[in-house]
Amino acid sequence: MTQHRTLTAVVVGTGFIGPVHVEALRRAGIHVAGILGSSKEKSQRSADALGVATGYGSLDDVLADGAVDAVHLTSPNRYHFEQAAAVLRSGKHVLCEKPLAMNSRETSELVQLSEASSCVAGVAYNIRFYPLCHEAADRVASKDFGTTLHVTGSYVQDWLLKETDFNWRVMAKDGGELRAVADIGTHWLDLVQFITGQKVVSVCADLQTVYPVRKKPVGETTTFSGGDQGDTQDVAIATEDAGSILLQFSDGARGSLHVSQTTAGRKNCLRFEIAGSKQTIAMNTEQPNSLWIGHRDRANETLIRDPALMTGSAASIASYPGGHAEGFPDTFKQLFRSFYGYIAAGDFGAPRPFPTFQDGHREVLLCEAILESHRQRKWIDVSE
Amino acid sequence: MTQHRTLTAVVVGTGFIGPVHVEALRRAGIHVAGILGSSKEKSQRSADALGVATGYGSLDDVLADGAVDAVHLTSPNRYHFEQAAAVLRSGKHVLCEKPLAMNSRETSELVQLSEASSCVAGVAYNIRFYPLCHEAADRVASKDFGTTLHVTGSYVQDWLLKETDFNWRVMAKDGGELRAVADIGTHWLDLVQFITGQKVVSVCADLQTVYPVRKKPVGETTTFSGGDQGDTQDVAIATEDAGSILLQFSDGARGSLHVSQTTAGRKNCLRFEIAGSKQTIAMNTEQPNSLWIGHRDRANETLIRDPALMTGSAASIASYPGGHAEGFPDTFKQLFRSFYGYIAAGDFGAPRPFPTFQDGHREVLLCEAILESHRQRKWIDVSE
Amino acid sequence: MTQHRTLTAVVVGTGFIGPVHVEALRRAGIHVAGILGSSKEKSQRSADALGVATGYGSLDDVLADGAVDAVHLTSPNRYHFEQAAAVLRSGKHVLCEKPLAMNSRETSELVQLSEASSCVAGVAYNIRFYPLCHEAADRVASKDFGTTLHVTGSYVQDWLLKETDFNWRVMAKDGGELRAVADIGTHWLDLVQFITGQKVVSVCADLQTVYPVRKKPVGETTTFSGGDQGDTQDVAIATEDAGSILLQFSDGARGSLHVSQTTAGRKNCLRFEIAGSKQTIAMNTEQPNSLWIGHRDRANETLIRDPALMTGSAASIASYPGGHAEGFPDTFKQLFRSFYGYIAAGDFGAPRPFPTFQDGHREVLLCEAILESHRQRKWIDVSE
Amino acid sequence: MTQHRTLTAVVVGTGFIGPVHVEALRRAGIHVAGILGSSKEKSQRSADALGVATGYGSLDDVLADGAVDAVHLTSPNRYHFEQAAAVLRSGKHVLCEKPLAMNSRETSELVQLSEASSCVAGVAYNIRFYPLCHEAADRVASKDFGTTLHVTGSYVQDWLLKETDFNWRVMAKDGGELRAVADIGTHWLDLVQFITGQKVVSVCADLQTVYPVRKKPVGETTTFSGGDQGDTQDVAIATEDAGSILLQFSDGARGSLHVSQTTAGRKNCLRFEIAGSKQTIAMNTEQPNSLWIGHRDRANETLIRDPALMTGSAASIASYPGGHAEGFPDTFKQLFRSFYGYIAAGDFGAPRPFPTFQDGHREVLLCEAILESHRQRKWIDVSE
Repeated sequence: MTQHRTLTAVVVGTGFIGPVHVEALRRAGIHVAGILGSSKEKSQRSADALGVATGYGSLDDVLADGAVDAVHLTSPNRYHFEQAAAVLRSGKHVLCEKPLAMNSRETSELVQLSEASSCVAGVAYNIRFYPLCHEAADRVASKDFGTTLHVTGSYVQDWLLKETDFNWRVMAKDGGELRAVADIGTHWLDLVQFITGQKVVSVCADLQTVYPVRKKPVGETTTFSGGDQGDTQDVAIATEDAGSILLQFSDGARGSLHVSQTTAGRKNCLRFEIAGSKQTIAMNTEQPNSLWIGHRDRANETLIRDPALMTGSAASIASYPGGHAEGFPDTFKQLFRSFYGYIAAGDFGAPRPFPTFQDGHREVLLCEAILESHRQRKWIDVSE
Repeated sequence: MTQHRTLTAVVVGTGFIGPVHVEALRRAGIHVAGILGSSKEKSQRSADALGVATGYGSLDDVLADGAVDAVHLTSPNRYHFEQAAAVLRSGKHVLCEKPLAMNSRETSELVQLSEASSCVAGVAYNIRFYPLCHEAADRVASKDFGTTLHVTGSYVQDWLLKETDFNWRVMAKDGGELRAVADIGTHWLDLVQFITGQKVVSVCADLQTVYPVRKKPVGETTTFSGGDQGDTQDVAIATEDAGSILLQFSDGARGSLHVSQTTAGRKNCLRFEIAGSKQTIAMNTEQPNSLWIGHRDRANETLIRDPALMTGSAASIASYPGGHAEGFPDTFKQLFRSFYGYIAAGDFGAPRPFPTFQDGHREVLLCEAILESHRQRKWIDVSE
Repeated sequence: MTQHRTLTAVVVGTGFIGPVHVEALRRAGIHVAGILGSSKEKSQRSADALGVATGYGSLDDVLADGAVDAVHLTSPNRYHFEQAAAVLRSGKHVLCEKPLAMNSRETSELVQLSEASSCVAGVAYNIRFYPLCHEAADRVASKDFGTTLHVTGSYVQDWLLKETDFNWRVMAKDGGELRAVADIGTHWLDLVQFITGQKVVSVCADLQTVYPVRKKPVGETTTFSGGDQGDTQDVAIATEDAGSILLQFSDGARGSLHVSQTTAGRKNCLRFEIAGSKQTIAMNTEQPNSLWIGHRDRANETLIRDPALMTGSAASIASYPGGHAEGFPDTFKQLFRSFYGYIAAGDFGAPRPFPTFQDGHREVLLCEAILESHRQRKWIDVSE
Repeated sequence: MTQHRTLTAVVVGTGFIGPVHVEALRRAGIHVAGILGSSKEKSQRSADALGVATGYGSLDDVLADGAVDAVHLTSPNRYHFEQAAAVLRSGKHVLCEKPLAMNSRETSELVQLSEASSCVAGVAYNIRFYPLCHEAADRVASKDFGTTLHVTGSYVQDWLLKETDFNWRVMAKDGGELRAVADIGTHWLDLVQFITGQKVVSVCADLQTVYPVRKKPVGETTTFSGGDQGDTQDVAIATEDAGSILLQFSDGARGSLHVSQTTAGRKNCLRFEIAGSKQTIAMNTEQPNSLWIGHRDRANETLIRDPALMTGSAASIASYPGGHAEGFPDTFKQLFRSFYGYIAAGDFGAPRPFPTFQDGHREVLLCEAILESHRQRKWIDVSE
């Protein structure tokens, strides 16, 4: 890892996920030169709070800083396209939070830009980087698992349960026309496609807006902090709070996914169950240190996240021994170790062990098919 | 319960579930006069094994026996219609295993017959009779739960995982055109409709036959006993091994269900998660002694099946104190206590606290809509 | 099982556990001729409620009834000695609830009586008859498990948590000088000795009476039904509510046990963890359908109570397929199937597959050593 | 937190836990100036691997470095006394891994030294810093919990299960006369004393050396990495692999603890169950994101580690929203935030919100009483 230490990053965005990136970059041994908020003042305040040297004034300032190797984009979704394009054009590496952009026209353009550039571009589908998710992928690929038969699961939360819960993400113009599917469903879809090595090729969706009108508090709000906040105003909501989607995979497997941001008691609960012709693999990322392996003819297994018991690729992204639980922040550390390790190694023709702009583009195509399916009340194939 | 003891039942069917009925009838204090198999000899052998007095020679013999109050039908599905009709016409009460019959024409006729008769007719959707399922129904009906938003879950097993697993239920001509949905999916559908008090009104299904050809062993086989059994012959299979279904409920709730008989490691696993506007209720019937109650603003709860902590209707079907686990056989005991208690009470105008032929009919209508939806690849409304 | 059906039993005792015996006897195919309470009237009332033919007037009446093969004693502990002796002297088989008697002088005499008689005598340590407890015993005996290193666990309840909780069992004169240890601790001790095949040979105990004075309600009370019951009177309590005990086993293994009837939220929770030199076996009888098997060099396992996956002796006491949960009432059914199967087989020189009076005697010796150890604050060897 | 960023630390020790400190210091915003191993070369190799500027040549070099504010001691136990004393004498703050030193004479001297100095001295009982452990402490202190009745639990691992497992910790001369109790038991004892606010005042212990002789590999070994390593030599072992201890607390509560490093399948499993007169609190640190709260008269609760649902002190050490699992590495980050926050605040008369040398001293006194109790086979009071 010696090579990583000279690499330098800047984080764009000071909300919930920006500081998560800062901390994880430090753990991965990457120097964080600064942070960029929606104003110079916000940048500085955040830089102070995080102990980061520079609060930048603008993205241009960041891109002009020759000491910066890579830029992390954790800004609101609607800025991703413009910012990612600018970073790539400036010749810096870019790691963008999902969704990569607001629609497939934009993501397609970003894919082209990234392919034309000599820079490395990634999307922060961090959940893959729970070590047991890598383990699941290795196991599904093995003979012991057999053929994938069906893939089911859900990603459910409760932070938008109440009519009075509000966040920029609920507004189509800020977060996009899809919300629960785009915010959390795409994590699930990326994950199961990563694990199974199959693509979702056709979808049939039924989405649900629990509150067509929400009570927006007057003043600012933060992700994952609901609660009663005084005066409110009515705001019409077009994005979905929940939904279920039937899935067909490229190799014939079937499946279904349920997403919801209105399931009381589930804080951030991603569950999958992948049934193969010989085994089943299941996991709940709220308990990311155990993987369930189901058997027909012998006792079921629960694998603890223990490097001594895992496959090579999974063990390589687990820093702590078995029984020493790792968690959500560790996924970012491991994603960044992977991303910067690839940059440091310097062979950009090698396969990329992290989610790329192509992956990010495909997720947006999937979202578009899901929305279309919901609107037309029929099966829709995912375009390529 | 003093009155129950004079009631007398006969069980038709000697397979897996017939003896389950015999044992549960005894626990419920009902006299079991005899059993009927597919031959006089089979009847006698089963009667001997179970310590039951009479091995009947035919259904006619049973119906001619004046000492018999009620007949339980646990024969293969294709006999249900004819047998149930005969029992009702003979003036005896009838409790039929599900599905009530092979199609809605038959079940509709049975509903009419039962309504015209002075007898009591029930269908053995026993899963409702886990005490915590009654508890769930009472809680969903309470103000604390709010409105039902979405209902998701699955019913998965692994006893038909292998190409060499075979049973009469896989053959459309014996079990019906639907299999996984009919055998286990209907239990789930009955259960969530019972709990929510809502009807499923529209469905969109995608079914999957994992093995279009199975290896049938030459010789006899038994439900829940797979394994390698020597010589086999290829048999074409038209029924589904698995499937996912989108659901719309009468009051606007949405949902999805996954069923499978090919999920390694899940032996008989029914899970539901019912999200309300204030709480979520979830359960896994493989652990039927605990009910999960999810909250947004306080700690989640796990309710143990403890009569001291449950609602009246749930406590009334729990025989043992908290911590003394009850299980699958207890559901039949409680269903039968309910069914015979109703008969003993004698007021047949009172609401029936057990699943009726009307419920059984509606499940068949649901199955027909699901099959139609799968075939047409579109949403289908459930007819009334 | 054909032979069982002619055997006839009578149950002595009409409290919580008497009716449990009645129901389980019926499931096991044993005819229950009648029940005996503390008065002819109570006997009759209970007989009516349970649908049993005879409410006996006295134990003498029961013993004089030539149709009765066996007598079950579920009366208060202080009657066990006299009643068990009378049953044996009358030439009938006897199954006694634990503890077998009030002290080792009594239990020793009962052992001698039973050995001198031609009758079969058992003690109702039913917990052994969870199928997965038999499975655990078979696994501990196998090479895969290695040597037993240490055995730890607890048996905790909460039904005596409050100062106002009262029951005859808290009074030393009715239940014996030990309470939590005798009522539940002995179940744990019997179980781990059954599973490991080792005897506890030395103990060091520290017992705790949380409430030296309890508020006894004026009027009658029932086991497992706490709650506020109006007027109370202060009663001095000498028996323990909780305690911890260090254990040494005959083959060198060590261990510890905690018992409590004052652990809020644990209703009837028996847990053990038996560490061998190659595997660990753990279980919680509140979830009696799964057994945990711990491994050092591969994933841990959870075995579902599935006859298809269990050893012969465990499968033989499991009536239902995997995933169809069994529970507490099933343990009595299986114990009685074992007891009456042995009687029916008629070879009384064969090893007894159920707990005997010798086992019951040894538990009382253990209790005496535990009490002595607590009082002397030192290690005490268990006498033979 | 702005103030923290100028504080600078050096870590002594390059084994398993040294790098854990480095990473957590970075997350807490503390500058890590360098690392010290057992040789200049080892220091440099470790510094390179971790991306730390300086590989020091000796502790004297570290103490002579004016830029260093605090020194973390993660060296083998036998060096702690000498090193901690030297750091304090040099006028730097010190955070020492547990145990604080090899015996109470040493720890007593270190307590005096720390009290006489103007520096801040802490011991790394990190487990307190699982947010739900702070939550447990706050809840036990509240009226809702009532009086503490009994405290039970265990800390078990399997990394020394095999005769061929070897590590410096098993040798009394390197790790101390107690091993399992000192290495992991003291974490449990510190934790439950922290949570209950009570001191353990008397103990009765039974310790067990499973392998009086171990096979030491020829060559170097690492903590938490067992396995077959070629040639071995027999080494006599005096330290314990496992043990159970009866406990009496200062306010009258009783309890028991089991520790083991030979429990197959348990990787690093600390469990406690604290029964109060109104509630029970239980936790397993292998699943550190949920806390069980047991109730007698209502459903039990499971509290997710969610800052929105926790007490102030617990929420203040939780960085991520509910459902975003935190783990073992986060405890060090939070401990260091607490330690350096206290230093930065500058009021050294304020109560210290982290474990102090006094706590470390008391744990050593406890260990001495435990060892004495084991040797004398009797209860021993813990000296003050």
